Amino acid sequence: MVEASKPRLLTGDRPTGALHLGHLVGSLDNRVALQHDHECFIIVADLHTLTTRPRKHEFGEVPGFVREMVLDQLAVGIDPSKVTFYLQSAVPAVYDLAVLLQMLVPKARLEQVKSLRSMARAAAMSDDAMTMGLLAYPVLQAADILMARATIVPVGLDNEEHIAIARECASVFNELYGDLFPLPDAMISRSPALPGVATGPAGSGAKMSKSLGNAVYLGDPPERVREKLATLTYDAGDRRLGDEAALLMFARAFVGDAEAADLRRELDAGSTSLAAAHALIDEAVNARLAPIRERRAVLAGDVGLVEETLVDGTIRAREVANHTLARARDAMGLESLWSGLVAATEARAKARRRPY
Amino acid sequence: MVEASKPRLLTGDRPTGALHLGHLVGSLDNRVALQHDHECFIIVADLHTLTTRPRKHEFGEVPGFVREMVLDQLAVGIDPSKVTFYLQSAVPAVYDLAVLLQMLVPKARLEQVKSLRSMARAAAMSDDAMTMGLLAYPVLQAADILMARATIVPVGLDNEEHIAIARECASVFNELYGDLFPLPDAMISRSPALPGVATGPAGSGAKMSKSLGNAVYLGDPPERVREKLATLTYDAGDRRLGDEAALLMFARAFVGDAEAADLRRELDAGSTSLAAAHALIDEAVNARLAPIRERRAVLAGDVGLVEETLVDGTIRAREVANHTLARARDAMGLESLWSGLVAATEARAKARRRPY
Repeated sequence: MVEASKPRLLTGDRPTGALHLGHLVGSLDNRVALQHDHECFIIVADLHTLTTRPRKHEFGEVPGFVREMVLDQLAVGIDPSKVTFYLQSAVPAVYDLAVLLQMLVPKARLEQVKSLRSMARAAAMSDDAMTMGLLAYPVLQAADILMARATIVPVGLDNEEHIAIARECASVFNELYGDLFPLPDAMISRSPALPGVATGPAGSGAKMSKSLGNAVYLGDPPERVREKLATLTYDAGDRRLGDEAALLMFARAFVGDAEAADLRRELDAGSTSLAAAHALIDEAVNARLAPIRERRAVLAGDVGLVEETLVDGTIRAREVANHTLARARDAMGLESLWSGLVAATEARAKARRRPY
Repeated sequence: MVEASKPRLLTGDRPTGALHLGHLVGSLDNRVALQHDHECFIIVADLHTLTTRPRKHEFGEVPGFVREMVLDQLAVGIDPSKVTFYLQSAVPAVYDLAVLLQMLVPKARLEQVKSLRSMARAAAMSDDAMTMGLLAYPVLQAADILMARATIVPVGLDNEEHIAIARECASVFNELYGDLFPLPDAMISRSPALPGVATGPAGSGAKMSKSLGNAVYLGDPPERVREKLATLTYDAGDRRLGDEAALLMFARAFVGDAEAADLRRELDAGSTSLAAAHALIDEAVNARLAPIRERRAVLAGDVGLVEETLVDGTIRAREVANHTLARARDAMGLESLWSGLVAATEARAKARRRPY
C-alpha cells in the first residue's frame, strides 16, 4: 500500500555501450537518490536503438551492452529490490500502445521536434532517409512512459520536447476516451553535461559520449582512468572558456565547487601545475569509482544476477503494461468489441450442450 | 499438406458499414472464386478504421458493422471452413510487427502515397492534422500482409501503392536480416468500380460507397432495392457518358455485356422506356441477391455463428502471426537477446538448487 502511493518514475538508456562518468553525474546519482521515494522503472531501450541502428551487425552489439548497462547501474547503488529494470522489446503491450497512440498525434507535430533531426544527422541519415521509426520515436517513448503511468521522467534537456509529446498523447487520449493517463512531467537534470576527455576526435569540446569515443567508463581500471583524465588540457583556449573549461568542469563535478574555483585561480596564477590538477581530479574520480568498481566486480562474479534482475523486472513491467493496455483498450472500445465476440461464441458453445 | 501448398492471400475491409453491390462485384465474387485454390485470410481491419475515425462515438459503431460485414461475406458464399476471418485489433503480434517495420521505411516514401492525402481529405483532416497513424497506415497494412506471409493481395486500384510499400518492407527486411518474407503482389480487380445509385448527394456520379449514402446493401429487402435502382437516370447527361452511364454499368454488371449494349441502343432509339430498363436491372440484381438474402436470414438466425467464425479465425490468425513474429524477432536478434537473458536466469535458478 505504501509502495503504491509513491510517485512513479520512468527513466533509462539505449543499450549502445557501457555507462560512463557523464551518466554518473548526469543521471545515475539522481536515480540512486530518487529510488527511495519513487517507484522507479528503468528501461533498457533496445527498440529505441533500432530507430537509428537497425542493421544486424549494429544490433548484434546490443546484448553485451544490455548486460554492461544493468551491471553498471547495480554497481552504482541502484537497488533492484526497489527498482524495476526492464527490456523494452520484451514487453509486448508497449508495441500495441505505441500503435494506438500514433492515431492521436499529428505528423506535423513530430516534424517540429528538433532532436529528431539531430539524431538523424548523428546516424548519418539524410532527411529523405529518415525512417518512420525515428519520426515516431517520441510516440514509442510516450508508450513507455504511459504504460507505466509514470508521472516523473528524468531526462536531459534535449529530451524535454519528447516528454511534452507524451503529455500531449496522454491528454488527447484522456479527452477522447476518458481520464486514464496521468500527465507526465519532465524532470530536467540540473547538473551541466560533463564534457568528454580528449581521447576521441571530438575530445573535451563535446559532451562525454560513448559514440564520440571520449568517455571514461565506470568499468575502466584506475590506470586507464588516469591516462584518460591526463588528456585534459588547460591552455590559452581553455582559459578563455573560464569555468566552462573541461578540466574545471571535471573539478567541479568530482572535487567540489570551491576547490574548482581555487584550482582555476592557482592554474591562472601558475602556482599549480597541470599535472597537479590532473592528480587532484584523478584522486577524486577514483575515490568515486573505487567502491563502484569493487561492487561491479562482485556483482559481475555473481553469475546470472544481472540477467535475473532484468528478466524479473521485465516480467513485472509486462504485468503493469498489460494492465494499462487493457484499460486503454477498454476506454477505446477495442476490448468490449473483442469480449463481446467471445461472449457470443461462449453462449453458442453452451447452447450446443443443451439437450432440448 | 495440400492446404499448405496453396498460395496465401490476404484481403478484407474496414468495418465502416454493411457490404453493398459495389463490394459484391468488385471483390466478394472474387473472394468466393479464389477461396478454393488459395489459403485466404480475410481481415476485419478495425485498427485501420482508427486511422481516420478515432473518436469514441465513431468507434462505437464498429462492433455492429463487424458483425454485418462477416455475415454478408458468409451469405455471399465465403466458406469459413476454407477461409480465416479475423479481427485485426485482436492479433497482438501485428502491432509488434508494425512497430518493427516502421524502422525500415523512410518517412519520405510514405509522404509520396497519394491515397493517404485523399483519405485525410475524406476524413476532413487538414494536412497539419494528418496523424502519424494515417501516415503509417501502409506500414500497418504491410504488417497485416507480412504476418500472414501472404503473396497475393486483392485490392482496388487506389490501394496498389500500399502493396508496393508492403513489398518494400519485405524486401528491406530480407536484405537486412535474411530471407523471411515472400514479396506480396497486388491483384488488381479488373471489374470497373460500380457507381452509386442516386440516393445520396454524390449520387450515381461517384462510385458506390457506404459513406456517400449511395449504396444498395446486400441486406436490403427487395422493395428497397427496387426503389434505389429506380433513382438511376438516363437523360441527356447520361447519354453523353455512353457506356459509362451509371444505368448501363449496372446493366453490364448484373444483366450482361451484350444485353447492356442492346439496352443502350433501345434507350437511345426510344424503343424501350427507363421504367423497363429499371425493371430489367432490378430483376437481375434481385436474382443475384435472392439466394444471398435467404442465406443471410438463415445465418443471422444461427445465434453466435458470425461471432464464433470471427473468434476462431482470430485465434488461428494469432497463431500464424505469433509464428511469423517469432521468426522476425529471431532474424533481427531480438529473440536471442531475450532468450539469452532467460537462459542465464534459469541457469542461476538451477545453480541455487545445488547442495555443494
